Amino acid sequence: MTKFTYQRKIYFADTDGAGVVYFSNLLSICHQAYEEYLTTLSINLSDFFANKLTAIPIIHAEIDFFKPLFCGDIIIIFLDRKLVNNKVFEINYEIYKENDLVAKALTRHISIDPQTRKTQEIPLIIKNNL
Amino acid sequence: MTKFTYQRKIYFADTDGAGVVYFSNLLSICHQAYEEYLTTLSINLSDFFANKLTAIPIIHAEIDFFKPLFCGDIIIIFLDRKLVNNKVFEINYEIYKENDLVAKALTRHISIDPQTRKTQEIPLIIKNNL
Amino acid sequence: MTKFTYQRKIYFADTDGAGVVYFSNLLSICHQAYEEYLTTLSINLSDFFANKLTAIPIIHAEIDFFKPLFCGDIIIIFLDRKLVNNKVFEINYEIYKENDLVAKALTRHISIDPQTRKTQEIPLIIKNNL
Amino acid sequence: MTKFTYQRKIYFADTDGAGVVYFSNLLSICHQAYEEYLTTLSINLSDFFANKLTAIPIIHAEIDFFKPLFCGDIIIIFLDRKLVNNKVFEINYEIYKENDLVAKALTRHISIDPQTRKTQEIPLIIKNNL
Repeated sequence: MTKFTYQRKIYFADTDGAGVVYFSNLLSICHQAYEEYLTTLSINLSDFFANKLTAIPIIHAEIDFFKPLFCGDIIIIFLDRKLVNNKVFEINYEIYKENDLVAKALTRHISIDPQTRKTQEIPLIIKNNL
Repeated sequence: MTKFTYQRKIYFADTDGAGVVYFSNLLSICHQAYEEYLTTLSINLSDFFANKLTAIPIIHAEIDFFKPLFCGDIIIIFLDRKLVNNKVFEINYEIYKENDLVAKALTRHISIDPQTRKTQEIPLIIKNNL
Repeated sequence: MTKFTYQRKIYFADTDGAGVVYFSNLLSICHQAYEEYLTTLSINLSDFFANKLTAIPIIHAEIDFFKPLFCGDIIIIFLDRKLVNNKVFEINYEIYKENDLVAKALTRHISIDPQTRKTQEIPLIIKNNL
Repeated sequence: MTKFTYQRKIYFADTDGAGVVYFSNLLSICHQAYEEYLTTLSINLSDFFANKLTAIPIIHAEIDFFKPLFCGDIIIIFLDRKLVNNKVFEINYEIYKENDLVAKALTRHISIDPQTRKTQEIPLIIKNNL
């Protein structure tokens, strides 16, 4: 299965007073890659995140930084996904600048009923693409 | 009527690669002052912004910058409010660092029905405090 | 002179608890359009914002909202620029969703010496493209 | 050694279209707690993050979410710190809402020379307080 890729420029708002990307902003940029991946599954993002029937909140996120990123840098994120069980999946992100792996990240998602907040099976449209 | 004041430290995430507060972040900080003001009216913020019966979106915002703000700076925001008509009000913000006026901002809010998005009267709890 | 255009998807992080784009985030998205415009002038963004010889901070920003924007929406920003005098210029932004003008914004920029913070002439690379 | 605590309200900008705190924003809020802790060591935040002699970038961050946080919620963050070796330290964060542990986070920091980006010893003011 080929990895999904997402390319993006680093913008000024992504940086902090040290002149590099603020650490948690890179997780937010990874989430953009996840949203672009969902779009390729023909998922309507507004419906998906409105959580009417199913919510899939993030229960864990982590990120490792190897090199700094500066305003104007072009990054490519390689996104991979893994089914953990029928209620939990993970998205892995490898962030490259040219040929350098500058960071790696992971988000873990759990499927719940948005009213009761009890776990439930991952929607098929997601599960079948993991 | 005395002005409401909100004090806050400038944090690293508020700054950008030029080492000063990123312009639109200061509007977001002004909105925090607005939320603290709403709290003093015993308004539940979660209910207020959930927009069940009334939504009061911002239709206009503006900000003027006189001096830069740096990480660690302590600012005080003086908040003033003005009823424009029975569907529209404005919040004015004067942002001080010690005795210096470093920025001024304004947000204009309109009261609408969240379903039809038609204008309707400002809720009394807000109107009576403007 | 043709207007510069920038297309972008609305991401989940751009939205707030009311389910629409948080007001000041749209100004930040307009700044991305400005950065893409600077890139077309062969300006290195990292150098430009590092402010070694010239800083061009925003002294005024304003935005008007006509319609709400939701996660997954595709917007196109039409960017126009105007020289106010030899030290000040303005960038105008018209934000469209399909054929609807959903918001308009403006940022006013002043050219200063980053050390003394005194005004100075706009760099030629910018001035010649306004 | 008593833990440092930081209390904060959840603001509207912290939330996303699902009506709860956007995942990476809680890491940014944890960093505010870290900055408040640095302030108690009489560290000047602007100098500290300007990275003239020493930079202490984050090389790893992670967060676990147990319960959602809503606009208006008051959280208390218990901050703990651990020296890993003479170049690396960790900050642990436990985020409570009333008596509920709603999230746990960790940031790992490395001391480097900002010019060469080679590792160097943690500044004494930090090391002596870990």
